[in-house]
Amino acid sequence: MPDNRVVVYQGPGKVGVEGVEYPRLELPDEVVNGLGLAKGAPHAVILKVVTSNICGSDQHMVRGRTTAPIGQTLGHEITGEVVEAGDDVLFHKIGDICSVPFNIACGRCRMCNEGKTGVCLNVNPARPGAAYGYVDMGGWIGGQADYVMVPFADFNLLKFPDRDQALEKILDLTMLSDIFPTGYHGAYTAGVTTGSTVYVAGAGPVGLAAAHAAQLLGASVVIVGDMVQERLAQARSFGCETVDLSADGTLSEKIDDVLGEPEVDAAVDAVGFEARGHGAGAAEQPATVLNDVMTIARAGASLGIPGLYVTGDPGGIDEHAKVGQLGVRIGLGWAKSHRFTTGQCPVKQYNRVLMNMILSGRARIASAVNATKISLDQAPEGYQQFDHGAARKYVLDPHGMVPA
Amino acid sequence: MPDNRVVVYQGPGKVGVEGVEYPRLELPDEVVNGLGLAKGAPHAVILKVVTSNICGSDQHMVRGRTTAPIGQTLGHEITGEVVEAGDDVLFHKIGDICSVPFNIACGRCRMCNEGKTGVCLNVNPARPGAAYGYVDMGGWIGGQADYVMVPFADFNLLKFPDRDQALEKILDLTMLSDIFPTGYHGAYTAGVTTGSTVYVAGAGPVGLAAAHAAQLLGASVVIVGDMVQERLAQARSFGCETVDLSADGTLSEKIDDVLGEPEVDAAVDAVGFEARGHGAGAAEQPATVLNDVMTIARAGASLGIPGLYVTGDPGGIDEHAKVGQLGVRIGLGWAKSHRFTTGQCPVKQYNRVLMNMILSGRARIASAVNATKISLDQAPEGYQQFDHGAARKYVLDPHGMVPA
Amino acid sequence: MPDNRVVVYQGPGKVGVEGVEYPRLELPDEVVNGLGLAKGAPHAVILKVVTSNICGSDQHMVRGRTTAPIGQTLGHEITGEVVEAGDDVLFHKIGDICSVPFNIACGRCRMCNEGKTGVCLNVNPARPGAAYGYVDMGGWIGGQADYVMVPFADFNLLKFPDRDQALEKILDLTMLSDIFPTGYHGAYTAGVTTGSTVYVAGAGPVGLAAAHAAQLLGASVVIVGDMVQERLAQARSFGCETVDLSADGTLSEKIDDVLGEPEVDAAVDAVGFEARGHGAGAAEQPATVLNDVMTIARAGASLGIPGLYVTGDPGGIDEHAKVGQLGVRIGLGWAKSHRFTTGQCPVKQYNRVLMNMILSGRARIASAVNATKISLDQAPEGYQQFDHGAARKYVLDPHGMVPA
Amino acid sequence: MPDNRVVVYQGPGKVGVEGVEYPRLELPDEVVNGLGLAKGAPHAVILKVVTSNICGSDQHMVRGRTTAPIGQTLGHEITGEVVEAGDDVLFHKIGDICSVPFNIACGRCRMCNEGKTGVCLNVNPARPGAAYGYVDMGGWIGGQADYVMVPFADFNLLKFPDRDQALEKILDLTMLSDIFPTGYHGAYTAGVTTGSTVYVAGAGPVGLAAAHAAQLLGASVVIVGDMVQERLAQARSFGCETVDLSADGTLSEKIDDVLGEPEVDAAVDAVGFEARGHGAGAAEQPATVLNDVMTIARAGASLGIPGLYVTGDPGGIDEHAKVGQLGVRIGLGWAKSHRFTTGQCPVKQYNRVLMNMILSGRARIASAVNATKISLDQAPEGYQQFDHGAARKYVLDPHGMVPA
Repeated sequence: MPDNRVVVYQGPGKVGVEGVEYPRLELPDEVVNGLGLAKGAPHAVILKVVTSNICGSDQHMVRGRTTAPIGQTLGHEITGEVVEAGDDVLFHKIGDICSVPFNIACGRCRMCNEGKTGVCLNVNPARPGAAYGYVDMGGWIGGQADYVMVPFADFNLLKFPDRDQALEKILDLTMLSDIFPTGYHGAYTAGVTTGSTVYVAGAGPVGLAAAHAAQLLGASVVIVGDMVQERLAQARSFGCETVDLSADGTLSEKIDDVLGEPEVDAAVDAVGFEARGHGAGAAEQPATVLNDVMTIARAGASLGIPGLYVTGDPGGIDEHAKVGQLGVRIGLGWAKSHRFTTGQCPVKQYNRVLMNMILSGRARIASAVNATKISLDQAPEGYQQFDHGAARKYVLDPHGMVPA
Repeated sequence: MPDNRVVVYQGPGKVGVEGVEYPRLELPDEVVNGLGLAKGAPHAVILKVVTSNICGSDQHMVRGRTTAPIGQTLGHEITGEVVEAGDDVLFHKIGDICSVPFNIACGRCRMCNEGKTGVCLNVNPARPGAAYGYVDMGGWIGGQADYVMVPFADFNLLKFPDRDQALEKILDLTMLSDIFPTGYHGAYTAGVTTGSTVYVAGAGPVGLAAAHAAQLLGASVVIVGDMVQERLAQARSFGCETVDLSADGTLSEKIDDVLGEPEVDAAVDAVGFEARGHGAGAAEQPATVLNDVMTIARAGASLGIPGLYVTGDPGGIDEHAKVGQLGVRIGLGWAKSHRFTTGQCPVKQYNRVLMNMILSGRARIASAVNATKISLDQAPEGYQQFDHGAARKYVLDPHGMVPA
Repeated sequence: MPDNRVVVYQGPGKVGVEGVEYPRLELPDEVVNGLGLAKGAPHAVILKVVTSNICGSDQHMVRGRTTAPIGQTLGHEITGEVVEAGDDVLFHKIGDICSVPFNIACGRCRMCNEGKTGVCLNVNPARPGAAYGYVDMGGWIGGQADYVMVPFADFNLLKFPDRDQALEKILDLTMLSDIFPTGYHGAYTAGVTTGSTVYVAGAGPVGLAAAHAAQLLGASVVIVGDMVQERLAQARSFGCETVDLSADGTLSEKIDDVLGEPEVDAAVDAVGFEARGHGAGAAEQPATVLNDVMTIARAGASLGIPGLYVTGDPGGIDEHAKVGQLGVRIGLGWAKSHRFTTGQCPVKQYNRVLMNMILSGRARIASAVNATKISLDQAPEGYQQFDHGAARKYVLDPHGMVPA
Repeated sequence: MPDNRVVVYQGPGKVGVEGVEYPRLELPDEVVNGLGLAKGAPHAVILKVVTSNICGSDQHMVRGRTTAPIGQTLGHEITGEVVEAGDDVLFHKIGDICSVPFNIACGRCRMCNEGKTGVCLNVNPARPGAAYGYVDMGGWIGGQADYVMVPFADFNLLKFPDRDQALEKILDLTMLSDIFPTGYHGAYTAGVTTGSTVYVAGAGPVGLAAAHAAQLLGASVVIVGDMVQERLAQARSFGCETVDLSADGTLSEKIDDVLGEPEVDAAVDAVGFEARGHGAGAAEQPATVLNDVMTIARAGASLGIPGLYVTGDPGGIDEHAKVGQLGVRIGLGWAKSHRFTTGQCPVKQYNRVLMNMILSGRARIASAVNATKISLDQAPEGYQQFDHGAARKYVLDPHGMVPA
């Protein structure tokens, strides 16, 4: 049995790479005990991790903004090669290279039947929905590792049709596990369609993915807002307009400068609860982005909210924020007849079609988010640089399988 | 030219019936000046008001919870007979009895083209969307009156196919101007469909209409919550289950008592910003109902929010509430992947099909909301009793046309 | 191992009950060989059949209108009790009473992911889609039997929440395996919603189920057409209007007599390719019902086509009909901008919500289709009487579990 | 009053430009008499025609394949400048340059309310739906003219935001009156979305527009089939794959050569009833394209059918074809659970968003369909060359307003 390593949260601001048991075809105890399932998992596979990306939502844990315990394993953006498969894995074979949706889902419950894999009922005793390597998400081992176990594999895995082609485009395909579908979900649920004008709040990887997704959905103009110049430049690199939130002026005025009117057809909040106010040195204002997107979305618009809002934030700015209750301008939204879609992206609803777009050359997500390969050992530096606002999406390459 | 009278806001807690000019086929000055339209309105009709209902949202003005000036005319729930028609009214004739959607809409702008008549761009200089007899809604004269002008009549009017049948069912049909579609919109946007379990917060007329609409949409169980016993009894009178919010216990527990599980498939907030906390003597807590419906709606659910939230509330409980910024548990909604639909109901999307349900005998909305006919002179008492929680929907009958 | 019996096609017009091997947790050879799957099926269960219904589509085989070989086992409308379960059946237990969708589906392919279980890619080497006991549908053993094997059980089974309640309502619940969802699919894809006027062609069990489904979907008026008086009386028994297609006059005239206009909002073809022309002694006219529903559906309408059309009909009226090419008035449909939805009902999309409607007492499908219990030995008589137009839906009760 | 000229059908194979009365703000007698409307039309405008295109459906008339009388005026693809406006035209002004949807629609009936402007109830006594210059479409004068009257102008006109920009892009914008939305409607109703593989049957202007629309909707691969080499080359010019239907081999084989599988996700019939069989010298086979698209669309697919099918075709190949009854392989479609959407494109649903795509430079429809400007006098030659298969879309420029 080969050795295994995994990235681990070691306390606020600190991650490390630690040795860990090689995975088995077994469910985590938290799920076994909490939901009464058998330990053995004939539906599971072991993957040799080809790539695993660092995600902005990992940073919430690493910054100490969650209740994640020290020792929490990390990594929910996984692409891997099947190296072992249970008896009831019928449609995937040893050697297949596959993308893994970050939402763990059973494929057999009511929610999965409805396509709502982000709130599967059978993978987390604490609440609907689970993920690899995440606090309160069922106790599943993270995939920023050499090897990882994936349950309900026939349902969860997305197989790439050709191995060589897959490895060649791996920096694009690795984004199918989370941020490309998550960005697309934001744009899609914001109602972006042919001819839409779109505002995306936040030029981190999810925001950039939402912006690129908006282009694929047919937006006529995509505007991205952020306070980090390097990220805005990244957005411009693939054809987006940008607004600099650190500069003077209201967001409406900035939108008006681009479009000739102060409102857009569709807006995406790709920031979430760790939002800051506008302008230099602005303090944390957890609902500010949500209120911003209401302000500049036209009446009758839909708002996509892939940015994370949480039910528990020990580092929140006040007692309300600590339990996820924020000052939302609901009166404004109501006056404009807005519709809001929140929650985890159900990756399976989008990953296959986005794979087609990558393989046909129509989507260039690696370039849009500035995918940057590093080794597993370099993960700690990757976390640090990403936290400092680097306009990069770090992709861990534990086995050196990513082409130069 | 006949005399005309209209119900008028005369200061906090006070309404009266006053003489007013007989309407002309002309637009209000606010619209003419603000939007640059011609004064003359060949697209308009004058209606002899057959019925006009008192609405819960009128109460917000009458209680002094808005910026409505003294002298504001009231009444946006109008059913009438065409007595005069402009040159460009082609499809309605003198003598037709028609329902009037409370949303005034031009039928010619982008929003109207998309069916979003609640945010028409051409009827209110202040913002998208207008209504008769309402503050900040374009300056249109109210219809709790003898006669009223309706613009863009071919677009706005819903003609009843047969006059005699219409008068016979007028207490049902009068609900098509607002609360029946509004309740239906709440249930529909909450995703109520065949087999759904549904919770409706609030047993006022809109809540009761939402509950009846949920039945028509195929709900398997409809639960209505309120603190007023008489209103709960009214809900039970047409087959709803009820939960008494003034009693001990959490809402989840009460839902569980009815369903055997603490969550429902779909939930409707039919209360809005003047919500109070639970239990006897509870104080105003403007986001409490919104947070309630998140708590008891299952993961993946949609929430319909026909209850009114406003951008300006001079009587709000704090500085934030005064501008419509409330403490919303957005973290909870996000964790449950909820979708929220807010705003005015676009009445035209639903009134024709609901008319069919009334005329075929399948919908019994007058009975569900306890429609109670009073004369125009009795309007002040009607306002008062409704404000005191009477489980009644008051229908003004200015010309004595409603059969006994 | 207990004995097992199954209903078998013994040649045109002839069925019998024959002994058959007790089922195993194994896939049929046709699937194993054609698709390269393993024989063993850890995802499967053995059901003790509680009820299994005779279906109109079984009659196509029994009449010799298909290529079904002698010895073809029959029965795809199955409700049963789990008596044995494979290692990867995690969410169903011995003793559970469950409904089985007639479409066999893997729950793991692209089509199943999209909810299109009627065209699953992994259960039939000949084409997408499979069923129990049906020609060209994958070689799966029929369920008009004592015991039957159900693969991919966690995905396919719908568990009833309470055993006693289930047995009490079993004549309703048994309709969830096929005709209730199939009728609902017809009405749903015809766009039936609140207030619709609806025409259902055919008062056999699927037509009656479509009519009842249309009521649940909120139709204001449901009209059913047939040439058999007993079936029309059955339709009237639960509140439908009827038109007698054996009487003089056009269908448009008959619709007009009911509604006051010659067109409906939505129409369902619940007959399919064995249609006959109107009037006494009319000959087979395989596209006549399809053309009828275009004639009486209004411009802009959608047509639901649950009635079966086939690609091979050895008994077809001409060379074209033998390969499923019929004289469709596509010019008429086009002029009216009709939309047509064809194909097997994907039962899983509807069976859970319809179960809720049965258990809450809102749906009364057994009564609507006149469910009639017979023993397994009586199956041959049931087939014969159903073929003669009996207004009954025969429910086989192999183990005497259906209450009197 | 200026002179006026219009293109007129002068008998099979023959069109000419004839003098005609300058239009008035009046409805055609056919509508006035048939529907009982007033002659005067305060809702109408007179347009000075900027461009008017020759359409493939005009050719059906000109070839004598309809019941169009000699003297029928032609032209339903109109872009113009407002030169006169009725009293109830409130939102368009003299000098506005606007696109006119070919479907004439009142904006006030149930169908228009639902967005189904292709089957408006108030503009054609013969049936729902009308068009300019077309047989059986209400008697409205054609727009291949110097001037034309457009009724219900506030509803029907799409104003271009800037006059100079509009004239600069006029060869693109002129396609908004019909073929760009019609092609888009075909692709959209075929379910084309991000990542779809698409087959478009027919490389005439509508087929090319459907192909370009499929690209905008996010197709990963678009394949166009035709028998005319010049048209196939045109399709390749903007990035489509092509299959040559005049060459040996089945369509499935040709699709397989491109995609590596013989089926596509979505298919569009952009040919209609004047279809021919495959191969050199093939005879007319009116349902062949419809049957083709079923053959190569995957199970569960939707088919968009913008190609015209008619209820009366005096030149049809047999008695059935003469009344629009064709040999459709409905059995095949049913086995594959296909959905079919037929009918006129409701242009208003799409023209605004497609205008945005043109003005932002994301859509290049003029180039895709090879727009070719000619004078009004050259119309007869344009008709002839188009009929001979020229891979061009002819744009009439009556006033020389189109820039060189």
